[in-house]
Amino acid sequence: MTFDLKSYLDARRALVDAALDKTLPTEDTPPTNLHRAMRYSVLAPGKRLRPILVIAGAEAVGGAAPAVMDAACALELIHAYSLIHDDLPAMDDDDYRRGRLTNHKVFGEAMAILAGDALLTLAFRLIADNASRMSDPRMIARVVADVADAAGTDGMVGGQVVDIESEGKDVTAETLEYIHRHKTAALIRVSLCAGATLAGARPEQLGVVRAAGEVLGLAFQIVDDILDVEGSLAELGKSAGSDERKKKATYPAFHGLEASKQQARTLIAESKRLLDPLGPAATPIRALADFVLERRS
Amino acid sequence: MTFDLKSYLDARRALVDAALDKTLPTEDTPPTNLHRAMRYSVLAPGKRLRPILVIAGAEAVGGAAPAVMDAACALELIHAYSLIHDDLPAMDDDDYRRGRLTNHKVFGEAMAILAGDALLTLAFRLIADNASRMSDPRMIARVVADVADAAGTDGMVGGQVVDIESEGKDVTAETLEYIHRHKTAALIRVSLCAGATLAGARPEQLGVVRAAGEVLGLAFQIVDDILDVEGSLAELGKSAGSDERKKKATYPAFHGLEASKQQARTLIAESKRLLDPLGPAATPIRALADFVLERRS
Repeated sequence: MTFDLKSYLDARRALVDAALDKTLPTEDTPPTNLHRAMRYSVLAPGKRLRPILVIAGAEAVGGAAPAVMDAACALELIHAYSLIHDDLPAMDDDDYRRGRLTNHKVFGEAMAILAGDALLTLAFRLIADNASRMSDPRMIARVVADVADAAGTDGMVGGQVVDIESEGKDVTAETLEYIHRHKTAALIRVSLCAGATLAGARPEQLGVVRAAGEVLGLAFQIVDDILDVEGSLAELGKSAGSDERKKKATYPAFHGLEASKQQARTLIAESKRLLDPLGPAATPIRALADFVLERRS
Repeated sequence: MTFDLKSYLDARRALVDAALDKTLPTEDTPPTNLHRAMRYSVLAPGKRLRPILVIAGAEAVGGAAPAVMDAACALELIHAYSLIHDDLPAMDDDDYRRGRLTNHKVFGEAMAILAGDALLTLAFRLIADNASRMSDPRMIARVVADVADAAGTDGMVGGQVVDIESEGKDVTAETLEYIHRHKTAALIRVSLCAGATLAGARPEQLGVVRAAGEVLGLAFQIVDDILDVEGSLAELGKSAGSDERKKKATYPAFHGLEASKQQARTLIAESKRLLDPLGPAATPIRALADFVLERRS
């Protein structure tokens, strides 16, 4: 029997979208413009990859979606905040994201900065809410700390800084990998880990999920770089080749397109192999790994 | 025997400054520019009012500084992040803060945005670390949630949005109070509450601290508004009258200077009266309330 990834993704994406809609402050409570700006970016159509990884991480160790929905939403809020801030004129200065005008083009720069700040703050509120239902109290602080580490200077923000500083410069393979590991892979990895932790993963299970998540996250960013070269505005919702125009450090620019595709395939196979100890429970994560490789946007 | 506030403040400020220096990532680990930007704003000379309130909140219920130092640092990081983002060209567009060039004037806008993001993220890491040492696990999630609520749309960020939206407009007394309660008072109140909670406050003690903190926070913002009218660059580290030039909604602009001073005195007296049930243990908070009223910067 094969795993029906499309049904799996559709069902979980619907759960996540409903939870996000319910969790975000409504547009008819003040400050209404802030809430509109927050909802505009978070509720834009998206893959919901990170929240679905939270759910799949829980399922891989015997948990289920309802017990990790707050954390799943939190990871999407952190992702959305990072996109809003990255798109700002002072950063990547992008006009389109997910096929829509970027947040600051609609709501202005001040509101975009504040909406990002509010989303990051709300994310930690949700993680605390989710973790407070755990039986092992030490794990509550652990999940908050893990997510903060993956999102902060040792993770996503640190990677974004080095990415910006590397624009227009010749970078080494080490710098490129630093950017990928920190800017993207850290949040992918911690999505899986947060789900597994909240579902009560044993230490050895958590080690497996963490290792597979790191490799999966690297593959995700390489595929992202490939899509930027090959994709179209229709598929990506942003201008293809925009990384190249900005002279961003990308995997294809450094290693070439064919070698990049081979490396993505190798990493995806590696991430699936790493999941072996978890048996059939990790089938959704393995299918998600294939999805990461084959996605067109 | 009178309480020696100066000695009290000097001793705790030294503790806080040492802890902040130790907690912030060093300038010789990458990404070095990000770490320099974070340290530049946080370690600028300051009153450290919020961290000292965390400590005083703990002391008021029988706790002591060492047990709440991570949370004390966290509240200063949240304050510093909010100043960095508020000073950005898209927001208040200020060139000076605490007598130094603002973060974006030194490090550029992109780095200032990211330094703020990193500080907010690190703050939640520190709160989790601090809370993880508590005996009552439910309190761990409680402290994270309280701080997130005070910093997010229902607190500081929400207040900042309404403040920006009110610039140059006639506002009602209700809007002015909304701004003050959310933009400033929420974080002051939660500083006291976080310290008290982490020190094991009983529910009725926490209620007392929360009520006094809210009133103290309102008084703090009114005094801030008064100082903006009366102060000098030397005292405030920013241009006096800058709120008026930007047509900010301020208490003196609405109620007049003398009525504002009277209201600040009334609120400070009220906050001290509210602390009565805590007895001598709340002496530092009462002295801090007087300090808030009498400060010249």
